[in-house]
Amino acid sequence: MDRRSFNRRLLAGGAVAATGVTSLSLTSASSAAPGAATPPRTAPAGGQVRRLRLYAEKLADGRMGYGLEKGKASVPGPVIELNEGDTIHIDFENLMDVPVSLHPHGVDYDIDNDGTRMSGSHVEPGATRTYTWRTHAPGRRSDGTWRPGSAGYWHYHDHVVGTDHGTGGIRKGLYGALVVRRKGDILPDKQFTIVFNDMTINNRPAAEPPDFLATVGDRVEIVMITHGEYYHTFHMHGHRWADNRTGLLSGPEDVSRVIDNKITGPADSFGFQIIAGEHVGAGAWMYHCHVQSHSDMGMAGLFLVAKPDGTVPGHGDHGSHGTGAAEKKPAARTDGGAHQH
Amino acid sequence: MDRRSFNRRLLAGGAVAATGVTSLSLTSASSAAPGAATPPRTAPAGGQVRRLRLYAEKLADGRMGYGLEKGKASVPGPVIELNEGDTIHIDFENLMDVPVSLHPHGVDYDIDNDGTRMSGSHVEPGATRTYTWRTHAPGRRSDGTWRPGSAGYWHYHDHVVGTDHGTGGIRKGLYGALVVRRKGDILPDKQFTIVFNDMTINNRPAAEPPDFLATVGDRVEIVMITHGEYYHTFHMHGHRWADNRTGLLSGPEDVSRVIDNKITGPADSFGFQIIAGEHVGAGAWMYHCHVQSHSDMGMAGLFLVAKPDGTVPGHGDHGSHGTGAAEKKPAARTDGGAHQH
Amino acid sequence: MDRRSFNRRLLAGGAVAATGVTSLSLTSASSAAPGAATPPRTAPAGGQVRRLRLYAEKLADGRMGYGLEKGKASVPGPVIELNEGDTIHIDFENLMDVPVSLHPHGVDYDIDNDGTRMSGSHVEPGATRTYTWRTHAPGRRSDGTWRPGSAGYWHYHDHVVGTDHGTGGIRKGLYGALVVRRKGDILPDKQFTIVFNDMTINNRPAAEPPDFLATVGDRVEIVMITHGEYYHTFHMHGHRWADNRTGLLSGPEDVSRVIDNKITGPADSFGFQIIAGEHVGAGAWMYHCHVQSHSDMGMAGLFLVAKPDGTVPGHGDHGSHGTGAAEKKPAARTDGGAHQH
Repeated sequence: MDRRSFNRRLLAGGAVAATGVTSLSLTSASSAAPGAATPPRTAPAGGQVRRLRLYAEKLADGRMGYGLEKGKASVPGPVIELNEGDTIHIDFENLMDVPVSLHPHGVDYDIDNDGTRMSGSHVEPGATRTYTWRTHAPGRRSDGTWRPGSAGYWHYHDHVVGTDHGTGGIRKGLYGALVVRRKGDILPDKQFTIVFNDMTINNRPAAEPPDFLATVGDRVEIVMITHGEYYHTFHMHGHRWADNRTGLLSGPEDVSRVIDNKITGPADSFGFQIIAGEHVGAGAWMYHCHVQSHSDMGMAGLFLVAKPDGTVPGHGDHGSHGTGAAEKKPAARTDGGAHQH
Repeated sequence: MDRRSFNRRLLAGGAVAATGVTSLSLTSASSAAPGAATPPRTAPAGGQVRRLRLYAEKLADGRMGYGLEKGKASVPGPVIELNEGDTIHIDFENLMDVPVSLHPHGVDYDIDNDGTRMSGSHVEPGATRTYTWRTHAPGRRSDGTWRPGSAGYWHYHDHVVGTDHGTGGIRKGLYGALVVRRKGDILPDKQFTIVFNDMTINNRPAAEPPDFLATVGDRVEIVMITHGEYYHTFHMHGHRWADNRTGLLSGPEDVSRVIDNKITGPADSFGFQIIAGEHVGAGAWMYHCHVQSHSDMGMAGLFLVAKPDGTVPGHGDHGSHGTGAAEKKPAARTDGGAHQH
Repeated sequence: MDRRSFNRRLLAGGAVAATGVTSLSLTSASSAAPGAATPPRTAPAGGQVRRLRLYAEKLADGRMGYGLEKGKASVPGPVIELNEGDTIHIDFENLMDVPVSLHPHGVDYDIDNDGTRMSGSHVEPGATRTYTWRTHAPGRRSDGTWRPGSAGYWHYHDHVVGTDHGTGGIRKGLYGALVVRRKGDILPDKQFTIVFNDMTINNRPAAEPPDFLATVGDRVEIVMITHGEYYHTFHMHGHRWADNRTGLLSGPEDVSRVIDNKITGPADSFGFQIIAGEHVGAGAWMYHCHVQSHSDMGMAGLFLVAKPDGTVPGHGDHGSHGTGAAEKKPAARTDGGAHQH
């Protein structure tokens, strides 16, 4: 993606730009015009070398976050997207008063990019370190066996704050989604990150769970990550997905189980795309942990699917519950948990 | 299925009819004669509109249950079976003194059929409400992408008793299996529902776990659902299944893991078919939660596989352990956890 | 496999032979010469009848273990490998002062080989009992449906020590891996068994977790088993696998999720093969439970991937951390958790 389209992407959502750059997408569209009868946009081949600046900092409320600009850290951190074959160099600066690191799942990196204290790849307060992550397409090895590609709904997190496994850093919010796409993978219209971290969703107070807004027909991508101490079951009302790499069935021969509830434990991650309101229409659809005490204690939010006129049936006057926002129109969320393409 | 075959199905098992109508199957056979060398019966195409009356009521022992007739509620509730394309209208009457609801997994419904208090779709004491669930076959969307069908081993449960997530209703027994089949899916000879609900199996006392009876060669379908607070691992002795949509391998190219043990959390569900005693013969085969303290505390029952003469090797004089029944012959169970086709 | 090659296999690793016979492989190679451009060795067709002597005994430190020779028990017990179609008779002698048994997952056996007290198939102190396990290849049943084969990464364990579910025996170490291969399955260069048993790895003290040593390019097989009371998430740094039967993608059409983290519960098991250091190079790569308190309490070890010269970058002077061993060269581990082909 050239610089021009990169800027266009970041500037696409005004709310996002106003409150902090919270997502970096390295994908570009091979087909620009979405529409009912138009094939969806798909990921291009990778092979590019990217460079990104990332900061770790403490937020005023005691949380810790990753951000693309100083003073703009979010929880979750920015979504980092790559296409198989891409390499990314992350110039990572520690703005906190304790050592911190960046440890990714799924991608390729040398041991001195592991983000662990044992490998000496953490970052002291005030220091900067460049982490390099590589990705690769699937293919056949010289011995004839099949080598998987890097594509997946992965994530990154701290590995040193509090303990040598980053228990303190993760607890306070040092995590984010890392999406690697394969050439031809379908691109979403909207993307949301949902992290079940200990007993919170995205480290939000139980009384203010994150809601996510879309319009009927939007192709919505959910990246679901679990962190911390507990197991959870992720459930969505009215929507289902395939329990495979993409969360989408590849066709009639795909035997993957279609589910609307999935057990997950710390550092598990998966992603899927749904067509908002498909077969069920607009509405304030709950998503929640289905462990009964967890949902009862607040691990529940809303997937608000609006009609084309922006209203959400049965959701009163407000299209964005629990956030104080008053817009009826779908809009990109202003925290790190969502971005709009 | 016409009314005549519907009645025939319900009346097929005398024991069932005597103690309460506990299953409703909307499937019909495309091939009637089972046999070793005969292709198994398969599910027909859906597309029918069904109507069902369902009741929620308190049982004398403090449990709560769903039932197809007044005074006949069972735990689990009746199995509801649909074929992709079917619609079902459920006239649901609340015979209890607290509000209750019906919330399904997997199927299609408008937001005002969600069975949640938030959507106002619960039912006050003494009131009746009609819930409508739809299903659909897989197919290609207008944009060329593949849309999954509704087929799956799903379930339904209360969402309002005790808490806004139905924690109290689920704890007391307000749950049941919901099976949606695809045209061509293989139909079982017998079907059992096993629900790990908190520390119980089907809300039975630990000293009286449900046993399930079949004869060597029966095609037995297990619908396994988890509810409540804890994670479990479901294990069967001597039998295995595929970890995919149907629990059956589609053929030699199917890479699904074959398992005999599976971790599950609240609201997870899956199903599979096994040929009773295949490769292992008749016997009293244990099934249990493999979390050690859970099995030690009683989360274990028997899958009794009888010889054609009705005896179960090594199982003494009784073919139906823990239930007080004295029959040696296989028979449909009289609780909601099982029915016989 | 004839007796000569059987002996050759067992004697291949000097360290192994010196400290106890800890693995029994019934596989043989259909192609002997590994190499970058040479197809890997694959499993042959099964169909052989094997006989094995196995002992249960108490170790000096209070653990209990299975072993192939008296006084040589290990935790985990020896890996037992079969090819689909093989039958194995295990002459099992109880050298302990309490009843014990052998209960397998995945394979075929008559009910009186179940290894449970209920079926009377446990073994009193001082007694010997022969357990017979059978396996079968996949194929088509007479009714046209597909019958899965026995191939899988299974395991065996005690079912009677302490409780009728073997809670005491499993806690003390009575478990091992059981691998059944399909004709054509790729054979590894090295194999390691990792068991998350309660809060331990392979019943090792938290301060001395098992490390596993390989050289860049080795095809390493991990058999991962969970036992006991807790759920865990198994994570490896720098390496990934496919979440299917073999842990390997079958090719470009395989939609299995590729993962580096997986939730597991007691008696779950899975296996996979990785090319040591592929795309990431040599290094001391952590593997650990990703439940934060579990890793913090010591459920973490090292997968040491050495350069061809035997050194492990960033791992100081020692190639085998936490075991007191001083070798820089890769070598088969001397406990039951690993063996070298």
